[in-house]
Amino acid sequence: MTDFAKTRAMFDIPEGMIYLNGNSLGPMPKTAPAAMNSFLTEEWQPELIKGWNTKNWFMQTNTLGDRVGRLIGAAPGTTVVGDTLSIKVFQAVAAGLSMVPDRRVILSDNGNFPTDLYMVEGLMKLKNKEYELRIPNPEDVMAGITDEVAVVMLTEVDYRTGRKHDMKAVIEKAHAVGAVVVWDLAHSIGAVPVDVTEADTDFAVGCTYKYLNAGPGAPAFIHVASRLLNDVDPALSGWYGHEAPFAFDTDYRPMPGKIDRMRVGTPSIASFSLLSAALDIWEDVDMNDLRARSIELSELFISEIETRCPGVTFAGPRNPEERGSHVSFRFEHGYPCMQALIAAGVIGDFRAPDIMRFGITPLFINHSDILGAVDVLERILKNETWKEERFQTRSKVT
Amino acid sequence: MTDFAKTRAMFDIPEGMIYLNGNSLGPMPKTAPAAMNSFLTEEWQPELIKGWNTKNWFMQTNTLGDRVGRLIGAAPGTTVVGDTLSIKVFQAVAAGLSMVPDRRVILSDNGNFPTDLYMVEGLMKLKNKEYELRIPNPEDVMAGITDEVAVVMLTEVDYRTGRKHDMKAVIEKAHAVGAVVVWDLAHSIGAVPVDVTEADTDFAVGCTYKYLNAGPGAPAFIHVASRLLNDVDPALSGWYGHEAPFAFDTDYRPMPGKIDRMRVGTPSIASFSLLSAALDIWEDVDMNDLRARSIELSELFISEIETRCPGVTFAGPRNPEERGSHVSFRFEHGYPCMQALIAAGVIGDFRAPDIMRFGITPLFINHSDILGAVDVLERILKNETWKEERFQTRSKVT
Repeated sequence: MTDFAKTRAMFDIPEGMIYLNGNSLGPMPKTAPAAMNSFLTEEWQPELIKGWNTKNWFMQTNTLGDRVGRLIGAAPGTTVVGDTLSIKVFQAVAAGLSMVPDRRVILSDNGNFPTDLYMVEGLMKLKNKEYELRIPNPEDVMAGITDEVAVVMLTEVDYRTGRKHDMKAVIEKAHAVGAVVVWDLAHSIGAVPVDVTEADTDFAVGCTYKYLNAGPGAPAFIHVASRLLNDVDPALSGWYGHEAPFAFDTDYRPMPGKIDRMRVGTPSIASFSLLSAALDIWEDVDMNDLRARSIELSELFISEIETRCPGVTFAGPRNPEERGSHVSFRFEHGYPCMQALIAAGVIGDFRAPDIMRFGITPLFINHSDILGAVDVLERILKNETWKEERFQTRSKVT
Repeated sequence: MTDFAKTRAMFDIPEGMIYLNGNSLGPMPKTAPAAMNSFLTEEWQPELIKGWNTKNWFMQTNTLGDRVGRLIGAAPGTTVVGDTLSIKVFQAVAAGLSMVPDRRVILSDNGNFPTDLYMVEGLMKLKNKEYELRIPNPEDVMAGITDEVAVVMLTEVDYRTGRKHDMKAVIEKAHAVGAVVVWDLAHSIGAVPVDVTEADTDFAVGCTYKYLNAGPGAPAFIHVASRLLNDVDPALSGWYGHEAPFAFDTDYRPMPGKIDRMRVGTPSIASFSLLSAALDIWEDVDMNDLRARSIELSELFISEIETRCPGVTFAGPRNPEERGSHVSFRFEHGYPCMQALIAAGVIGDFRAPDIMRFGITPLFINHSDILGAVDVLERILKNETWKEERFQTRSKVT
């Protein structure tokens, strides 16, 4: 049984804050400053250029990739970290399109995180052929998987409502019609159990700054099914993915049969030290325990809000099995209300037009946080604190 | 007059080491650990998600971009940092090609850093049209600039020999025939004076982990001429370059008229704290002083080696005005000899087949370092220390 009191104690949450935004940016693990300081003073400073060998910097893309991959059921050697999620989406979809060269449709949905759609738009423009990006409503995706589709690109958990796609069903249908599947697991990894191997996805990508707690802008990851590693086209063909990166040949040859070919340029090694510290916390976490606790805390939060906070309407799927690990509510005055919550130390976030969103992250959130957050929301609603002038003005970045 | 004793004291160079590899990975500024710790404990830890506003994380791509841009003569608002150099090369060349849609030739040279060529290879495959990448010898580039050429992509300073292209002459000829120019300044920034504005380049890219000393895998940068900012096509069209990144629209609209459109995904903010600390050192450095001292130290190094080290042959241009800030020598036993040098605390590097390369970095290298390094090399050659068995085996990463 995972000890969640122990994992909670591993984070340095600000005194008096109830942090329900770990789905957006995780809090700092207590070990992060020492891990980073050790990288700076025991690696970069004394080793300098030699650190690429002596401290294994060069292969941290892979050793950390394996540790990230374990959390989504990926086999060792099928995941690397580096770059940003936008770049990894581009790589995966570009590779997917090259596997089905005679088709012209990319299927996503209008609930996908916008940057995934934007990167595909850019890719389609580069391709100099008529491609089409279809974005139906999420519930119409299954019907849209036809033999016109080259690549199905979906985010498993909707960043707004928390609604979860049926990964296995999508992959089965896509493969049956000859389409390639790319999953964005940004809101899944560390949030819900995922088994990319059992589900047999082609590609999966995600980030490590949300539920994995590796810091703002922490590295992204990409997983490629073992069966594709020998043929997958990297598209972003940088020296770090070359068969012989230190031969300095003028021609690109992707590393044969290995996930290394999805590496692009020289990654930030400093950012890897934070990722490594953050991953340590996951060593003793059982994802099924985490899921059970996430559902328990979410159900408590929803029922308390529905009982005590009139006008605030739950906006996600009622069945917890169909949700990820954040919960969303619609409220007419969602924006100023969220500002009032934040001012009172309860941190969630707001997504236009009227959604108040809260991350339920069992690694560091417990029952008393949940009840405490609802207490604050109830008080704000009762005293109409959100009407105060200071909560009415939108900041530039919400 | 720049005080180089003062800048030298700002670095934490290991005791007894003569570090002639700042052209590959710069040493750690003494302020780096405190700067990073302040980011971790005074920004991420207490501010969490709010840090994107309160600590200005969101715009550090631009504020740091301006500070980097100043070192290459770029106007404020024309440079951003983020991603890796490979990604920035891809962005620049893709944008360049879209400006000259009727041409099919990309001109580089066979002395360019290989990843620049690799990224263009990948881009050409994506484009689904017949493109051609020409890589003549560096001295034949000028003659190759014809009206067939869409994009001229060059690294100003050759990573092997230190040979420097004539940036202004290349740009003038390229513009005269209607071609777009992309400069890779990885081996120029912080090494030689560059004025991208006066030279009127279209694009410039580079990294910050070499002469700028921001740590292994530190962020890359891209500069775009002001005159192009309204029309340039980002190709890698991520949310961070969107006109309204927090509107979460499903369609991409590049930030109008601003360098922001060349931002892609969420950058590592931790890596920015190291970059900021490293840039502080440059505040009081005059690039002309630095260049004069780089030439003085290089000339001393070359003449001492030629006098005292028979068999070791200078491999760069004789005229210092035609070199960057590293010097290279051919030596039949270059590989084991460099191993012996490194074992003796003189750090340079080896580039196949026979080049020993040394970075001359006046910020932290002085006359006595230069003379001390030659002493060690002379001793190694005289005693034939490089013949020792332990120096003969190649490590996997050289």
